[in-house]
Amino acid sequence: MSLLVVGSIAFDSVETPHGVVHDALGGSATYFSYAASFFTPVRLVGVVGEDFPHTHRELLEGRGVDTSGLIIEPGGKTFRWRGKYVGDMNSAETLEVHLNVLGTFSPDLSETFASTPFVFLANGHPGTQRKVLRQAKSRKLVVADTMNFWIETEHDELMKLLTEVDGLVMNDGEARLLTGEVNLVAAGQKVLDLGPRFVIIKKGEHGAIFLSAEETFVMPAFPLAHVVDPTGAGDSFAGGFMGYLASVGAVDARALKTAMAYGTVVASLNVEDFSLRRFQRTDRGEVDRRLEHYRGMLAF
Amino acid sequence: MSLLVVGSIAFDSVETPHGVVHDALGGSATYFSYAASFFTPVRLVGVVGEDFPHTHRELLEGRGVDTSGLIIEPGGKTFRWRGKYVGDMNSAETLEVHLNVLGTFSPDLSETFASTPFVFLANGHPGTQRKVLRQAKSRKLVVADTMNFWIETEHDELMKLLTEVDGLVMNDGEARLLTGEVNLVAAGQKVLDLGPRFVIIKKGEHGAIFLSAEETFVMPAFPLAHVVDPTGAGDSFAGGFMGYLASVGAVDARALKTAMAYGTVVASLNVEDFSLRRFQRTDRGEVDRRLEHYRGMLAF
Repeated sequence: MSLLVVGSIAFDSVETPHGVVHDALGGSATYFSYAASFFTPVRLVGVVGEDFPHTHRELLEGRGVDTSGLIIEPGGKTFRWRGKYVGDMNSAETLEVHLNVLGTFSPDLSETFASTPFVFLANGHPGTQRKVLRQAKSRKLVVADTMNFWIETEHDELMKLLTEVDGLVMNDGEARLLTGEVNLVAAGQKVLDLGPRFVIIKKGEHGAIFLSAEETFVMPAFPLAHVVDPTGAGDSFAGGFMGYLASVGAVDARALKTAMAYGTVVASLNVEDFSLRRFQRTDRGEVDRRLEHYRGMLAF
Repeated sequence: MSLLVVGSIAFDSVETPHGVVHDALGGSATYFSYAASFFTPVRLVGVVGEDFPHTHRELLEGRGVDTSGLIIEPGGKTFRWRGKYVGDMNSAETLEVHLNVLGTFSPDLSETFASTPFVFLANGHPGTQRKVLRQAKSRKLVVADTMNFWIETEHDELMKLLTEVDGLVMNDGEARLLTGEVNLVAAGQKVLDLGPRFVIIKKGEHGAIFLSAEETFVMPAFPLAHVVDPTGAGDSFAGGFMGYLASVGAVDARALKTAMAYGTVVASLNVEDFSLRRFQRTDRGEVDRRLEHYRGMLAF
């Protein structure tokens, strides 16, 4: 089944202990789309400026991503982010943000896009996420991401969103901020009380926790001796997770668990190089081989 | 097969967000012994003062722990530790340490104890750990724990120890300190270069990483919504790990992995209450049921 993502498309300038990139293709919807493209056709909704090279669009289209929902804002500039990772690289220090065309982004879905069964609302204003949700008439599964900024500044709108989505993806700090609970399992349980059928709490290099009314489990990150750039890891995780679910057209407990494993494995590939470079050197075959390796690691 | 542990026996005063205990039975050898006693007979070597109640000794003996190696130092006082956990409780703040009789602890093994095949050298002076090792003539598997203090103050002696043990157990901060590597997989690989056949890096609430020349895998902690007191979690992990290995008399890859899972599960029980209270309310049956639950969590 097809999969829709609404989110950011960015030029990222990133410094890590392993190198630097300037104005590399990034953004939540970009990482998500590429990651999901190993599994299923993706429909991308986003906005860029006139400075966005056509080669970037071709890169995504070459992966089976339908970019007909990509708005090129006349006279506008693409969203830019500059950040730095130090030490254990578990969190980025943001050095510069230029929202540019993203600041007034208000997505309208085409009729085809509005009929997509699997929908991912990447991190963004909860009001914008809700606007997309209202248009998604044929939704079978809707998962949203969010961040500290929205928890603090758009709390009411976010609370409404949480009653409307099936799943929420967030990181550990965000889960603690939203619920006031330090313990992540307890925090996850409180998130479920806010509406979603399941919540995934991402812990960076420590993996992710999945909680629903029926079950709680943790999946460790795939162990890597050399992490080059964590940028996009969370969105790549979400892309692998949603991409797999859309590919099997299922949302039962077993599918959700396998999707967690695929998300973990796809994210582990992404962080092995800057921007989309590692993704550009892999394929579904390698993803599946790493999944089997990961499965073996967890079996005893 | 039988299992020997040499380590501390303590009176712990602990404060966590969930309560306080004063002068509760603790210490690395205590937690280790109790945890291992779910699997195999344990031989305990340690030292206490005349203030050590006989009921504590009886508690351990009731678990099949041979306490004939427990020295009661005439006129001495038992080792005391006071600490506090706040926030995510991933590390303790030490408020007071009174080494007392532990300060001059120099273990001599009886002939029976010296013939024990499975040996755990709990955290202690590397020179003392090496002294025990020289006496352990029938060793089949020796695993040591260590800490920041020894890495910083007894580096040379610790380096010698590492060439003599089969396995090393340490936490994430210690692994980083010892190797200068922030990435824990890379740190683990460097530890292997120092001598041990395998290393286990404990990550508190995030589980543990196992590394050997043959394999690398991560086991997440068993997810708990309510952690009461993390004191002794690492030693309980080691006790479950070594106890299982001694019980099956094997140290092959498969046994080591199952042992990691048992260590994880036993540690998760320990942290559900202060001191040994949760252990005193459980049995091998519950340990095995939680192991099966954990196995199911990791299967996809």
